[in-house]
Amino acid sequence: MAVYTEVPDEELEAFLATYDIGTLMSYKGIAEGVENSNFMLHTDAGTYFLTLYEKRVAESELPFFLGLMNHLVDRGISCPTPIRNRKGEMLGRLAERPAAIVSFLEGISVRRPQPRHCVELGRALAQLHMAGADFKLARKNALNVDGWGPLFDSCRDGIDAYQPGLAQELDKELAVLTREWPRDLPHGVIHADLFPDNVFFIGDRLSGLIDFYFACNDAFAYDLAICLNAWCFEADGSFNITKARALLQAYTQVRPLEPAEIHALPLLARGSAMRFLLTRLYDLINHPPGAFVKPKDPKEYLTRLRFHRGVASPAGYGLDA
Amino acid sequence: MAVYTEVPDEELEAFLATYDIGTLMSYKGIAEGVENSNFMLHTDAGTYFLTLYEKRVAESELPFFLGLMNHLVDRGISCPTPIRNRKGEMLGRLAERPAAIVSFLEGISVRRPQPRHCVELGRALAQLHMAGADFKLARKNALNVDGWGPLFDSCRDGIDAYQPGLAQELDKELAVLTREWPRDLPHGVIHADLFPDNVFFIGDRLSGLIDFYFACNDAFAYDLAICLNAWCFEADGSFNITKARALLQAYTQVRPLEPAEIHALPLLARGSAMRFLLTRLYDLINHPPGAFVKPKDPKEYLTRLRFHRGVASPAGYGLDA
Repeated sequence: MAVYTEVPDEELEAFLATYDIGTLMSYKGIAEGVENSNFMLHTDAGTYFLTLYEKRVAESELPFFLGLMNHLVDRGISCPTPIRNRKGEMLGRLAERPAAIVSFLEGISVRRPQPRHCVELGRALAQLHMAGADFKLARKNALNVDGWGPLFDSCRDGIDAYQPGLAQELDKELAVLTREWPRDLPHGVIHADLFPDNVFFIGDRLSGLIDFYFACNDAFAYDLAICLNAWCFEADGSFNITKARALLQAYTQVRPLEPAEIHALPLLARGSAMRFLLTRLYDLINHPPGAFVKPKDPKEYLTRLRFHRGVASPAGYGLDA
Repeated sequence: MAVYTEVPDEELEAFLATYDIGTLMSYKGIAEGVENSNFMLHTDAGTYFLTLYEKRVAESELPFFLGLMNHLVDRGISCPTPIRNRKGEMLGRLAERPAAIVSFLEGISVRRPQPRHCVELGRALAQLHMAGADFKLARKNALNVDGWGPLFDSCRDGIDAYQPGLAQELDKELAVLTREWPRDLPHGVIHADLFPDNVFFIGDRLSGLIDFYFACNDAFAYDLAICLNAWCFEADGSFNITKARALLQAYTQVRPLEPAEIHALPLLARGSAMRFLLTRLYDLINHPPGAFVKPKDPKEYLTRLRFHRGVASPAGYGLDA
């Protein structure tokens, strides 16, 4: 749920006048995303999406995110296209915030993905990884294995208050992850947050990917592990191997996995579960009382972490290893 | 700021399947209105607006509101058109709430109306009053002069806590209003909440009226008095007689005011200021701490009430009486 910033009419008009996107017919604040303020614009030329970047997104990183979307669209990936203003810039300022207009992407995110959605996802993820190969900018993954330790340390007391004994369990887990984390897997630009919220479908067909504001350079297989966590568990916590197999097979048909990537999957899945468990714990512990955005429940990622710890080989994900 | 209800995909799909409005391409929760949950729908046939009625709107009154919009559209008023489902009904159920789909109305509400906007408003208001003449349903104005006393009594203590002495001032004012309120002015269906939020413009042209959920049967001139309050005061509290004259002249060019209506204007304006002052005081006093919707400031309506009390004749609004 978003729209944090009210934009004065005159400022919006002046901002839009710097673009060649027609006459504004209507605009609506959108209850979507929790990081930024989003508006849907109708002009006589079409539908656009306006984002005002609130403080959680660093302004210095916006050229990477917008440049990446632009790069991907040029290579045939369906994602929002940053619209350039009359000066040729993708980034402007509105209501004292960095602001960008992108093309509006039609589609609906599925709340309960089915195996057929995982097939579409796997294919799109592999295409994304290949399309990003020659993107010139780079961004370090601030939430990679090296970042989890400091994040954990910053809320260790809160974690033990949340669930006694959990800090000790995560401490051990972090030691394993840090020691065994593979550092030389094939890598490039990854989405790093490809949850069902960020994948649009029209009918059963994937219509596009959105929200590249966690994109960074990291191992491709780690992105796949994030999707295993985000798409292949049921509401009751059980792992749906049919969905996992659908996702992995579709991915490998576009970009075959190397043996080292396949071998690393269980550990990468543990790491990815740890990453979302830690940020959710952090958000819960640091959540201002009475704030409107309800923090996400960390528990489901603890369940997933424990599941992956018990996976003996990639066969546990339906892969023939 | 709205969107209170999350709608499960399957339920939305099933609901839309009862309509003949094409295939859903996308839907977005809209941060608009504080009473209901609103969604903007794109289908391959066009753009629509879906409203889920939350508890503040009585389900029994929805046929009046939807029927009125339908009636007005038939008579050439630009307002959202209720879309009938395949059974011919304008009202359905979704996510355990009454729900309706209306046509999407393009346009932008002006935050700081200018005299040219007041001209457009006056004309549209008069057209609305005339178009509603033969509407068959009726709805009592629950917030009319007879309702202010009970509303005041229900929060008298809170009002005195808010501003010592204010309850006494309002008590006297209510006595005057009740004694002198004109009961036999020309009447019919009025909008009763035609604030700038609820009037859309494209450029300088009025493109439509929205939010009929306070519409009721009452004196036409009272609707005009509501607009005088909502459109003709500056942010610093001063009354802009140029805007008032623009509004009233444009109105009378479409629907001439009777002498009794003109004569009653100062009292109607006092009453209308009282109505919004009381509901804002009520909302402020009964506002749950930490709730997301910030209550509106009652003070500006106290200033307006006092202004109108000092208006000696309709000439004070720029009318030649």
